[in-house]
Amino acid sequence: MPVIEAHLLEGYSEDERQRLARALTDAACLVIPANPDAVTVMIREVPKANYMRGGKTRTPAPARSDPCDQIRAYLAAMEARNIGTARSMLAEGFVMNFPAAPGLRTLEELIAWAKPRYRFVKKAYDNFEAFQQGQATIIYATGTLYGEWPDGTAFENIRFIDRFEMSDGKITRQDVWNDMAETKANLARAHN
Amino acid sequence: MPVIEAHLLEGYSEDERQRLARALTDAACLVIPANPDAVTVMIREVPKANYMRGGKTRTPAPARSDPCDQIRAYLAAMEARNIGTARSMLAEGFVMNFPAAPGLRTLEELIAWAKPRYRFVKKAYDNFEAFQQGQATIIYATGTLYGEWPDGTAFENIRFIDRFEMSDGKITRQDVWNDMAETKANLARAHN
Amino acid sequence: MPVIEAHLLEGYSEDERQRLARALTDAACLVIPANPDAVTVMIREVPKANYMRGGKTRTPAPARSDPCDQIRAYLAAMEARNIGTARSMLAEGFVMNFPAAPGLRTLEELIAWAKPRYRFVKKAYDNFEAFQQGQATIIYATGTLYGEWPDGTAFENIRFIDRFEMSDGKITRQDVWNDMAETKANLARAHN
Amino acid sequence: MPVIEAHLLEGYSEDERQRLARALTDAACLVIPANPDAVTVMIREVPKANYMRGGKTRTPAPARSDPCDQIRAYLAAMEARNIGTARSMLAEGFVMNFPAAPGLRTLEELIAWAKPRYRFVKKAYDNFEAFQQGQATIIYATGTLYGEWPDGTAFENIRFIDRFEMSDGKITRQDVWNDMAETKANLARAHN
Amino acid sequence: MPVIEAHLLEGYSEDERQRLARALTDAACLVIPANPDAVTVMIREVPKANYMRGGKTRTPAPARSDPCDQIRAYLAAMEARNIGTARSMLAEGFVMNFPAAPGLRTLEELIAWAKPRYRFVKKAYDNFEAFQQGQATIIYATGTLYGEWPDGTAFENIRFIDRFEMSDGKITRQDVWNDMAETKANLARAHN
Amino acid sequence: MPVIEAHLLEGYSEDERQRLARALTDAACLVIPANPDAVTVMIREVPKANYMRGGKTRTPAPARSDPCDQIRAYLAAMEARNIGTARSMLAEGFVMNFPAAPGLRTLEELIAWAKPRYRFVKKAYDNFEAFQQGQATIIYATGTLYGEWPDGTAFENIRFIDRFEMSDGKITRQDVWNDMAETKANLARAHN
Repeated sequence: MPVIEAHLLEGYSEDERQRLARALTDAACLVIPANPDAVTVMIREVPKANYMRGGKTRTPAPARSDPCDQIRAYLAAMEARNIGTARSMLAEGFVMNFPAAPGLRTLEELIAWAKPRYRFVKKAYDNFEAFQQGQATIIYATGTLYGEWPDGTAFENIRFIDRFEMSDGKITRQDVWNDMAETKANLARAHN
Repeated sequence: MPVIEAHLLEGYSEDERQRLARALTDAACLVIPANPDAVTVMIREVPKANYMRGGKTRTPAPARSDPCDQIRAYLAAMEARNIGTARSMLAEGFVMNFPAAPGLRTLEELIAWAKPRYRFVKKAYDNFEAFQQGQATIIYATGTLYGEWPDGTAFENIRFIDRFEMSDGKITRQDVWNDMAETKANLARAHN
Repeated sequence: MPVIEAHLLEGYSEDERQRLARALTDAACLVIPANPDAVTVMIREVPKANYMRGGKTRTPAPARSDPCDQIRAYLAAMEARNIGTARSMLAEGFVMNFPAAPGLRTLEELIAWAKPRYRFVKKAYDNFEAFQQGQATIIYATGTLYGEWPDGTAFENIRFIDRFEMSDGKITRQDVWNDMAETKANLARAHN
Repeated sequence: MPVIEAHLLEGYSEDERQRLARALTDAACLVIPANPDAVTVMIREVPKANYMRGGKTRTPAPARSDPCDQIRAYLAAMEARNIGTARSMLAEGFVMNFPAAPGLRTLEELIAWAKPRYRFVKKAYDNFEAFQQGQATIIYATGTLYGEWPDGTAFENIRFIDRFEMSDGKITRQDVWNDMAETKANLARAHN
Repeated sequence: MPVIEAHLLEGYSEDERQRLARALTDAACLVIPANPDAVTVMIREVPKANYMRGGKTRTPAPARSDPCDQIRAYLAAMEARNIGTARSMLAEGFVMNFPAAPGLRTLEELIAWAKPRYRFVKKAYDNFEAFQQGQATIIYATGTLYGEWPDGTAFENIRFIDRFEMSDGKITRQDVWNDMAETKANLARAHN
Repeated sequence: MPVIEAHLLEGYSEDERQRLARALTDAACLVIPANPDAVTVMIREVPKANYMRGGKTRTPAPARSDPCDQIRAYLAAMEARNIGTARSMLAEGFVMNFPAAPGLRTLEELIAWAKPRYRFVKKAYDNFEAFQQGQATIIYATGTLYGEWPDGTAFENIRFIDRFEMSDGKITRQDVWNDMAETKANLARAHN
């Protein structure tokens, strides 16, 4: 217990059905601390011809892509400065909040803001997490930053966390926290 | 579509059943971008006497408390320096990672580490988020910090994000990011 | 076979559930010529707190009144010339088609049209039938007319059939056929 | 709500399953005034080998033909005076009730009765309706008649309604109403 | 797996429902060697008003008494020579087959047959087993006999097995095997 | 009623599913004396990819062989003195109880015990019955023995019943009752 049965229009791939089954398992365990072996999820695929809502047959909406994969692709495009690709993944009204730089609205603003702060920065990922809240998908990426300071010295192992919101398959918001200022303060102390 | 039916041992409160129904709705929407009005969740309560697993009746495990409420209580206890209360919520092997202070293992260590950094700090919460990943519950708290620097001047509106992992109802890990160093660097720049 | 399970929000009366069960049985038998003893209908009532559509609990819509009862009441009001009561049961845009009197739109028109045709007419009902077609409920009433011709002689046993359409609980259309003209022609032949 | 699941032996065509799904949708809406988009019907086909009643596997009974199609074919055969074809569709004990001609039992009687009334008559159909009541299928056909009076003058646009009862795939009863006498009376008045 | 759901008319006692759940669990395990903890049985009770077969509500048939209890009561009545009570539990056409005494039809015949064989015999039960086969319930009782030979010497520990068939709550057949003859032969050998 | 639905991982043969359906039918009838035509069993096969327990897909355990077939094979091997084959079907700790020979542990012991009792014995089977009790499968074989006494004279029509217990597909116990001693005693009486 619980035993969960999800009726689904036929047409989703095995991978999509398993993502659904895992998400339903996690949802059950969020509330019911059952022995994991006792949480059963069964997906029942209903052929299109055998399903009517309001007296009409329906076409299954294509499954969402894995949101972690989408964010991974966005961050890769940003790292590679493929601004066009990255921009195509953003929703109208997209907003970014970086440490001490709230309310950035365009990737160009972000790039201008970042310019004096480091020569380049890259992300080593530890973890991606995604979950749904009503209409929004929330994705967290955590890991460490590495790159070069403006003076060309290298840095690495600076913790970061990015929080994304997606809606209808587009990114609507990004919030970023990291230990860069902490690291710079430590460097400054070490120099003095 | 989808139509989700969850069979549950009788004994969960209305609030617990609704938390489950919402979590299952979110789980479905994470994968299937259905018109939200078309995502149906029905919970069927099975009386204890009408359910057997392995030929034996079973007792429903008490539902988990809302993990957001648990973290809220933990953070409140820490703010009030009710160390005993806070400690009772930690699992064996608990570890904390703060900016530039990885791997703290006891609340006493944390308090010692914090001492030279500020007279006090409090949290204004914007948002709590919780989801399950296998055996772990992940909780995020975001908001802003306010308090006093060691010299008694006030600060506020410093963004933070806390990530918690819980297992079996106990907190196993806390990761903290915030803009404190960024703020201090800005203050220092302003002073010079 | 078939075995039909209908999940319903809790709150419908026993009579309403049995009307539903009978309607579902009839629907199955319209297509599948199963041995009637093999057509099983089970209604499962889902408590309001155990049901969510789109992540929200829902309130069960009050069941429709039995449409045969509604038409019976309408016809009784008309017979008793309770025009106000009868009119309150009509939808905006209501239209009546009587033999040789198509397109009447108000009860007053109908009464005026009927005046020279008989002193009064009443209905002895044989049968009421109702079924649904998409958004419309169709009701048939059959039986015989009795009353008095303008000259005061009585008539009876004149077959009639009334077809009604209802939508959202209001009558949108009435079509009437009967053997009155046939009867009068026969009377005329008999007199000559 | 409601969510209706019909378990059916495998073997029915897509058209038959959709007729069933529509009939079940209509049945639900006859009683529950749900938002039509909220009425879900799912048909689950059970392979013959996976179904037992009384410990025995069962063979699915062939679906009934669409009763509207059957009546259409009967009326076409009658119009074309294919008496043999029409008669093959009648049940033992079949009875017809025409205006002023109740209780006709054979097609020959009907033809004899009609002979002095018109040279020929044909039907222009507006609508066919079918529904089930216990063991009987009820079918209504409405539309207008056109043809020639005995004197060869044409008539048209005379409203009619035919009610049929079928049982076990055969027609057991036909009741006919129309405005023919009304029309003739009007013609007579116009001539005088 | 398997997950078994049994829909039952409301009205069976908790004990009856648990006997059913256990019997269904055993039935599943007879064919599927699942981890017992993975065999789930859920009984869903359908209120009488929510169930129709063939368009008619049905009254739940009273559950069968536990057949082991019935056989226990029959054997107790026989041991106590309450012939009336015992006889009331027998179906028309009842037949008994004892070692070397096939085809006994009445309890009186049995008593007469037993008379020269022992002064009295009683049963110490090890085990009762019951299962269904189509319309018949099969019950096995095993254990040991004790009592006195005609000469008054005592015997004990003689293995027996009784097989019963019941139908419609009555015993239709009893077959008995035991080691009495073996024991007597051993006694005789010992005496010689 | 009852209506039983068994959800099963896809992969069982038609014969295995029908054995399951029959066993579930019998289980229901053991408790509920329903009109057999009203006991419905539906097996729903869930594709492996559509089923998760504890968040993991599972592989269906191969069905048990028909236990009656297994016992038949064991008894045939014993009759043919294919000791190796027979022994391979026995579980560790196997024990046999024969009339006046309790607690035999090896087939060799059994053969030695039988040697002075008859030249050979064979079984004519009337009936095999199998049912499950928790982890154990119980099988009964009944019929008659025929063969030759040590002196070469033939015997036949001696009733026997064998009870077997199996666990995990191996025979753990055999209990045997028969009328051999009774028959020999009768023969002796006849000779004297």
